[in-house]
Amino acid sequence: MDTQTLTKLAKLIRYFILVSTTAAGSGHATSSLSAVELMTMLYFKYLHYDLLHPDNPANDRVIFSKGHASPLFYALYAAAGRLSQEDLLQYRTFGSNLEGHPTSRFLFTEAATGSLGQGLSVGVGEALAFQARISNFKFQISNLQHVYVLLGDGEMAEGEVWEALAWAAHRRLTNLTAVIDVNRLGQSGETMYGHDTEVYRRKLEAFGWGAIVIDGHDFSEIDAAYQKALDYKAGPVAIIAKTVKGRGVSFLEDKNGWHGKALSKEELAKALVELGEVDKKIRGIIAGAEVASSNARVLRSSAIASAPSAQGSHLPKLPALTYDPQNPVATRKAFGNALVRLAQAYPNMVVLDGDVQNSTYTELFAKQFPNRFFECFIAEQNMVGVALGLSRRGWSPWVSTFACFLTRAFDQIRMSAISGATIRFNGSHAGVSIGQDGPSQMGLEDIALFRSVHGSTVLYPADPFATERLVEEMMQRSGISYIRTTRPETPVLYTKDDQFPIGGSRVFDTVSPVMTVVAAGITIHEALKAQKQLRQELISIRVIDCYCVKPIDTATLKKAASETKAIIVVEDHYPEGGLGEAVKSALFSTLDTGNQTIKPDQLIHLAVSKMPRSGKPEELLDFEGIGAKDIMETIKNFLKKG
Amino acid sequence: MDTQTLTKLAKLIRYFILVSTTAAGSGHATSSLSAVELMTMLYFKYLHYDLLHPDNPANDRVIFSKGHASPLFYALYAAAGRLSQEDLLQYRTFGSNLEGHPTSRFLFTEAATGSLGQGLSVGVGEALAFQARISNFKFQISNLQHVYVLLGDGEMAEGEVWEALAWAAHRRLTNLTAVIDVNRLGQSGETMYGHDTEVYRRKLEAFGWGAIVIDGHDFSEIDAAYQKALDYKAGPVAIIAKTVKGRGVSFLEDKNGWHGKALSKEELAKALVELGEVDKKIRGIIAGAEVASSNARVLRSSAIASAPSAQGSHLPKLPALTYDPQNPVATRKAFGNALVRLAQAYPNMVVLDGDVQNSTYTELFAKQFPNRFFECFIAEQNMVGVALGLSRRGWSPWVSTFACFLTRAFDQIRMSAISGATIRFNGSHAGVSIGQDGPSQMGLEDIALFRSVHGSTVLYPADPFATERLVEEMMQRSGISYIRTTRPETPVLYTKDDQFPIGGSRVFDTVSPVMTVVAAGITIHEALKAQKQLRQELISIRVIDCYCVKPIDTATLKKAASETKAIIVVEDHYPEGGLGEAVKSALFSTLDTGNQTIKPDQLIHLAVSKMPRSGKPEELLDFEGIGAKDIMETIKNFLKKG
Repeated sequence: MDTQTLTKLAKLIRYFILVSTTAAGSGHATSSLSAVELMTMLYFKYLHYDLLHPDNPANDRVIFSKGHASPLFYALYAAAGRLSQEDLLQYRTFGSNLEGHPTSRFLFTEAATGSLGQGLSVGVGEALAFQARISNFKFQISNLQHVYVLLGDGEMAEGEVWEALAWAAHRRLTNLTAVIDVNRLGQSGETMYGHDTEVYRRKLEAFGWGAIVIDGHDFSEIDAAYQKALDYKAGPVAIIAKTVKGRGVSFLEDKNGWHGKALSKEELAKALVELGEVDKKIRGIIAGAEVASSNARVLRSSAIASAPSAQGSHLPKLPALTYDPQNPVATRKAFGNALVRLAQAYPNMVVLDGDVQNSTYTELFAKQFPNRFFECFIAEQNMVGVALGLSRRGWSPWVSTFACFLTRAFDQIRMSAISGATIRFNGSHAGVSIGQDGPSQMGLEDIALFRSVHGSTVLYPADPFATERLVEEMMQRSGISYIRTTRPETPVLYTKDDQFPIGGSRVFDTVSPVMTVVAAGITIHEALKAQKQLRQELISIRVIDCYCVKPIDTATLKKAASETKAIIVVEDHYPEGGLGEAVKSALFSTLDTGNQTIKPDQLIHLAVSKMPRSGKPEELLDFEGIGAKDIMETIKNFLKKG
Repeated sequence: MDTQTLTKLAKLIRYFILVSTTAAGSGHATSSLSAVELMTMLYFKYLHYDLLHPDNPANDRVIFSKGHASPLFYALYAAAGRLSQEDLLQYRTFGSNLEGHPTSRFLFTEAATGSLGQGLSVGVGEALAFQARISNFKFQISNLQHVYVLLGDGEMAEGEVWEALAWAAHRRLTNLTAVIDVNRLGQSGETMYGHDTEVYRRKLEAFGWGAIVIDGHDFSEIDAAYQKALDYKAGPVAIIAKTVKGRGVSFLEDKNGWHGKALSKEELAKALVELGEVDKKIRGIIAGAEVASSNARVLRSSAIASAPSAQGSHLPKLPALTYDPQNPVATRKAFGNALVRLAQAYPNMVVLDGDVQNSTYTELFAKQFPNRFFECFIAEQNMVGVALGLSRRGWSPWVSTFACFLTRAFDQIRMSAISGATIRFNGSHAGVSIGQDGPSQMGLEDIALFRSVHGSTVLYPADPFATERLVEEMMQRSGISYIRTTRPETPVLYTKDDQFPIGGSRVFDTVSPVMTVVAAGITIHEALKAQKQLRQELISIRVIDCYCVKPIDTATLKKAASETKAIIVVEDHYPEGGLGEAVKSALFSTLDTGNQTIKPDQLIHLAVSKMPRSGKPEELLDFEGIGAKDIMETIKNFLKKG
């Protein structure tokens, strides 16, 4: 690809950027214009990508971490002949897949971006997926595929970028190149470093990256940089490109106040005059699979194809499941056991943990499958982004840390849902029942977090059998799913033959129950204690183990509401967004067992309502009024009243 | 303070660490032991702190970002005579303020820590609070107070640390010193860089910090480092201290597997033999206010004392409030106006924004009060931490960005609540009504997030008058409060005389309403459109503007449930944890208007249920079924049935 042709393509791409944003009446024209040369060279000289088969495992990958440069992103595929100008003119309109920021509705989007600072982690995950070292358990994977991530200078302020940079260097991901578009201007003003590219060089080198500073509008410098990046074998490489925001249109260049704005029709006409003659017929060629498919690539392709799918409709043969009914087991430990048990059946399952593997029990998996375990250190945001990248390349990632620390990655979890990704989360040390470590270590908002995620599944088992079965269920489930596990050891309640389908619950009934306690996880054990003690006082209650918080078992809850006088929901979580509100929503549902009447005092909600503190688990359950004692008192008070 | 005395104090502190953790049966003994010399030197030679008056504005500040080193933290105050050994033996027990990780229940805690990587941002906020540059509008503040932050090497993997480092250097906070305890071992294994202190040096220098590498157990090196840090005037300084985890007890030193563990009684006995004779009577002296109070410090002290409190019981005199009832105004703009209007009355009010000031309209404040506005760039986690630090030092911070990007800082918001801090948040661009930018930019989980925060207040105004009044209300409110603002311009609904108390709502009634629509923000306008059109069809409905989502107006909602046939909740948010579930919880409350019966189909919940996409705001409201059309159809269908 000669410079003359590249120059023509760059002009065409600028034309596309300008007309598509003006047609839309919004969009980030100037942020796109700064990276035109960088991306034109990448797409039409360096990238290997089978445009007809985005899923071809031989493809290189490109992530626009600066997702607002979507006009450029789409223009590149138009310049490659894969989109028409008519498609571009639908940019940002309802029904078009060319959205304001890329989502997975557009065929070539690796991961939804637009919340800045997230794309590099995804690229790290994809580069890692391509690396041989994670695959020596079964697959032959070549190291040839390359991952490119386009970043803006503004998003370099995001901590997640530095988490990703550190970890990528630590893993020596030589097949990863970051292209940093240093156009000096953020949305509202100059970035922290303006055009000082040397600051970026110093930082990146200190983080263990190769760093190449170039003029981001000079094709020969860009060309040399990409070549150097491919040749560099000491680690990943960053191309730090000094660019001009709005490049190519004099009244936009390096000007504040144009971020996220489209030109008016009059301004567009002026800009097009400046742009000069555009060859609207020219199209670039992206080197496709025929070039990319070396033997190694074909090999990987077939290996992936033969790998069992995590989304399969029936569960593969698994080792037997045994727990001694006499020995209490923490559900966090059962979770670790389940990972090990499922590992053989799901060879594409990988596990990520944030320096708490000996608390979450992912260490059990790590010991047996060291090549499928990734220590992500204390950097939860990058951990989730890496998982997203791995999931996009055919792996089935589990992300594990304390429930409370998953709040650190809420934005990344949200973006994973927008990306349509399947990622499974474990949050251990849920609730006040962790005890002495105090409130900073207690997950008390995690159910609210995961319930609010679009299309999510939220599980909270009370015993080791339930935990193991729910981990199995999660492997069959797509989208974002979450299992909440408990620190203390708790009694075994079930057997290996019990089933725990998604959307179900388990009922511990007694004869003619007068009231129902709905609980999950640790509070089930409190409810069962209450049930036992009340029986001695001849008060019979039903206990529902609501192990599936989303989707919830509406039918069983409504049945309980009609068959017993009241429902008490008890949860080790703040009152908002947790099990209690899930139950309330279920009772207001008109689905399932119809439309019976409820009185407000028929639903009593016990939850963590005081700021917790250090103490023994049982002291804290009492302090918050969610232990057996409070359940019994609540029931007796209700019965006394009415 | 001579080395011999420091050595004796260090020995005493090691003794305290060991006995308190063994008494507790848990706690991070080894992580404490590595930093004993570092902190002993700091507390007993460099720190200026009036131990009897933690609020003395002349005090220096120390933050244990590695909050798990709480045994050391408390031991220091015992060695200074402020706690007794008996106090220490209550460590981690229920009722003791010496919790597993420091919370604000302990008098000398600047901010709750324990979620790693957050302390430096808080320190940045405190150092900033001390800097003269933010105070030239009214106060005289000296630049003498110094802020020290103790970090672990494990938490250096957290992106927030690098956000804080970059921003601190950018602001040239020469009164800030980070002490990095490089003890090589994380919880579950070696950190990314082990004992390679040079990597840290390179990184910190690249980030604009002075960096001093020392042996963290050598008093003379430590002494020199603190002195250099005080003398260095080019920026903040990091002391990178190579240390040994478990230092002082041979069988703990540099050993994996001891993280977060206390010694058994037998192990303690062995350890104490190794420690040798301890002078249990010796106490160190921390230079107090009599030393610290230079004239400048006294000046600041009195300035702060005379500053009006944001927690005052009555509102100061404010400029008048006017909006033309004919001109639609975006609530985000009214929010910006409100900040400006309140700024004079609250001279301690400061505003932080993450490079979106021209979208959130904090630019209105920034232009008029540049010294009270902090551009935090695209680094939301650090922004919240800085706000927490500012709030601890007497300022009233507002944090502002897009609603969706506040998910980035959920962990920091959670920790702010544990710190008992008062911080006010604005999340603009809420919901699908932002339109073309697409789902990555839409706040759809933000109400769930903020409702789940302990003690929070959640507000969602529908018009500029309501917005202005609610901003006023927030200034009177302590704890974490949140206002959700809308991108598009919407009609003016209220007048300057309307009141919007916390816990209230506004009712738009018609004669004999048959049904009630509960909405907030953008959906109020849809509900009012529906009300108007239905009136032409002789269907009369009530519309409740539920501007206060938490605490919610239970009485008005229950009244509506009893006076009309059904309630329809319409919200521009995902179904879980938002307005709908808040209303359901209110209807299940037995407070207020008693205990009337509800049927499930009397509560219909319309919320964002499909993954949104780009499009016009009105197209998206329709797509999600939360626009006027859907409200009308829902009402008509209900009436047809019944």
